[in-house]
Amino acid sequence: MTNRLNDIFSDNVMNMKRSVIRELLKLTQKPEIISFAGGLPSPLSFPIDIIKEIACSVLDNNGAKALQYGATEGVNELVDELIKILKDFDNVDLEKKNIIPTTASQQGLDFVAKVFCNPGDVIIVEAPTYVGAISAFNSYRAKMVEVELDNDGMKMDDLESILKDLNEKGIKPKFIYTIPDFHNPAGVTMSIERRKKLLSIAEREDLLIIEDSPYRMIRFRGEHIPSLYALNKGKRVMSLFTFSKILVPGFRLGWIIGPENLVEKIIVAKQASDLCSPPFNQYITAEFLKRGHLTNTLTNTIAMYKEKNELMLKMLDEYMPKDKGVSWTKPDGGLFLWVTMPEHVDCDEMFKVAIKENVAYVIGSAFYPKGDKKNSFRLNFSYPSKDDIVEGVKRLAKVINETI
Amino acid sequence: MTNRLNDIFSDNVMNMKRSVIRELLKLTQKPEIISFAGGLPSPLSFPIDIIKEIACSVLDNNGAKALQYGATEGVNELVDELIKILKDFDNVDLEKKNIIPTTASQQGLDFVAKVFCNPGDVIIVEAPTYVGAISAFNSYRAKMVEVELDNDGMKMDDLESILKDLNEKGIKPKFIYTIPDFHNPAGVTMSIERRKKLLSIAEREDLLIIEDSPYRMIRFRGEHIPSLYALNKGKRVMSLFTFSKILVPGFRLGWIIGPENLVEKIIVAKQASDLCSPPFNQYITAEFLKRGHLTNTLTNTIAMYKEKNELMLKMLDEYMPKDKGVSWTKPDGGLFLWVTMPEHVDCDEMFKVAIKENVAYVIGSAFYPKGDKKNSFRLNFSYPSKDDIVEGVKRLAKVINETI
Repeated sequence: MTNRLNDIFSDNVMNMKRSVIRELLKLTQKPEIISFAGGLPSPLSFPIDIIKEIACSVLDNNGAKALQYGATEGVNELVDELIKILKDFDNVDLEKKNIIPTTASQQGLDFVAKVFCNPGDVIIVEAPTYVGAISAFNSYRAKMVEVELDNDGMKMDDLESILKDLNEKGIKPKFIYTIPDFHNPAGVTMSIERRKKLLSIAEREDLLIIEDSPYRMIRFRGEHIPSLYALNKGKRVMSLFTFSKILVPGFRLGWIIGPENLVEKIIVAKQASDLCSPPFNQYITAEFLKRGHLTNTLTNTIAMYKEKNELMLKMLDEYMPKDKGVSWTKPDGGLFLWVTMPEHVDCDEMFKVAIKENVAYVIGSAFYPKGDKKNSFRLNFSYPSKDDIVEGVKRLAKVINETI
Repeated sequence: MTNRLNDIFSDNVMNMKRSVIRELLKLTQKPEIISFAGGLPSPLSFPIDIIKEIACSVLDNNGAKALQYGATEGVNELVDELIKILKDFDNVDLEKKNIIPTTASQQGLDFVAKVFCNPGDVIIVEAPTYVGAISAFNSYRAKMVEVELDNDGMKMDDLESILKDLNEKGIKPKFIYTIPDFHNPAGVTMSIERRKKLLSIAEREDLLIIEDSPYRMIRFRGEHIPSLYALNKGKRVMSLFTFSKILVPGFRLGWIIGPENLVEKIIVAKQASDLCSPPFNQYITAEFLKRGHLTNTLTNTIAMYKEKNELMLKMLDEYMPKDKGVSWTKPDGGLFLWVTMPEHVDCDEMFKVAIKENVAYVIGSAFYPKGDKKNSFRLNFSYPSKDDIVEGVKRLAKVINETI
């Protein structure tokens, strides 16, 4: 290996690092560790037998098409079904030109950065925010400006003051990135008032909103709140969805909806990135939706996650030293909740203790673009068994009691 | 739609355009048109029944894993099989750290541009070259410098003079991109002498080579020639492969091999791009390889393409006006051949006439980064039936005779 081949990389890739989470996850693979660290759906939610039946039927009836190249714009049958489920779920009226299937929503994140961001361009993100979004945005060297969250989602006064500040510097953000429903990692949901306020700010400031909605269909408590896309009728909102949480992650299939001229550029980006998402997987998913299996699968998944979430909340309530300034969010859906420790606690350090006690979480600092806030961590409740939730929270409480 | 949302795009995406080929293909969808324009493998080469059997077996035995998220580095079982087939086929010794599965080789092209190229960085490509590579490289605004091809592949004297010229300007290319085997679109194969010469130049100039090998395993004439990766023992070569031509395109599955430190950066890029390629598809493909089905599938595919290629060559020989300066390449494998017309003929213009005569090709200009060479076009022989090859070449000859 010559020296030059060690020093040949783009500025973009030098700005990237291996995902902290994925590296930490390797530490949590030992069987004796109870891990709340992953972001995995429960494999018990996978409708394996139905998928098998449908895969056979697709290969029998549509094999030559499903195994061939497909259009970048996606398999027609799938796009038709996506239009229907979003009409049912969010009462939005979409046309084909407003939708493009993606290789799951990580590719959606990659595309919004690729299509909108030059190096140094400012975008607004929540703090904390999804770690995969941070990776994608870093990979195009977008500059993330952080808006704080509370239990009602993104704080609008914080957003206003940041926009004012940027305005004064002559900076126009490329977009505002938000996860309104069952936030990863924070577990909070943006209230309807905040949604309306956010849209009115975006309208006033002529800004694009990227609405990341991987968990939107996994609500186990409370009332459905309209999506930003629905409230805005998609005029200045692009929304990212995935089948990873509502069907299976192993198909790597998601979709983006948005204004036609923006979707058009995503198509151009996708042609150069991977030509099309797997037609085989698109045909299977289309048939799964067409046969009406999503409702049942979602019902089962939601019931399972609700039970696990309630158990985790009960155990936290019972074992955590609340009087010592430990608090956590109570999500109405999704896969995650967020624990905040007293300011002085370094949860990156505490992680090592947790691993010794055979329990794992994701360090909260991974969810801040600058990685500078260390007194929080994320717990996943979708993947661990109920027994593991009981025992794991006990272990975690021990670690915390010894730390603070 | 406000004005700003029409004017919000990155410089990278503004440098991209919809694939000319994919747009032209839409014109060729009418049933009365015989199309030599696509780049599709024959669906008759798809082992649909075997895939069905294996998909069922994967879902029965490994469903929970195959439908879950997977490691960015790929499914272990697949990587093991890739190591074996490359040992068998090219006698190269790979370790896991030298391989990463990709969402087919278009993603490989995207990654080499993303990982190595800043806007304006110079890379060296063949002229003509693969149109998907042009799209990927444009999407990171790499500057493509063209080296001419002849029947033995990239012309080394042309390469030397270009490198000298760049050296004098103080420019070091990021890499040399080549398709040594059964070139798309040119249909030529780089001779062993040229391969050795190219590697010695790369060694002398300390350059990285990107070897694009989608068709390498589809040889229907002549002797196997060692890959650049094999000749160089992978010191300064990254090679891109795909299952699209040897199994099915519908899985969107390929792989990259290369030096560990470069593969490491590809992994980082892939984490931010799509996390992992579909584990479902990786498990099926791994099992397909493990059960030894690749050999049979390849044997059938190669026999089929050989027959079609020979028929197309026979028809061209019989009907083309060779005395008027029309010539074509005689590929030893792959899916394409390349027709060169007299200098004054504009094959972009002639395409309209061809469509009127119900026959289609891909305009040669699409395969030049600057789009400036217009007297050539590409013919595909893998997809059309033998009857269509016979009738299509006759129609094409009529178009050409009327044009020149």
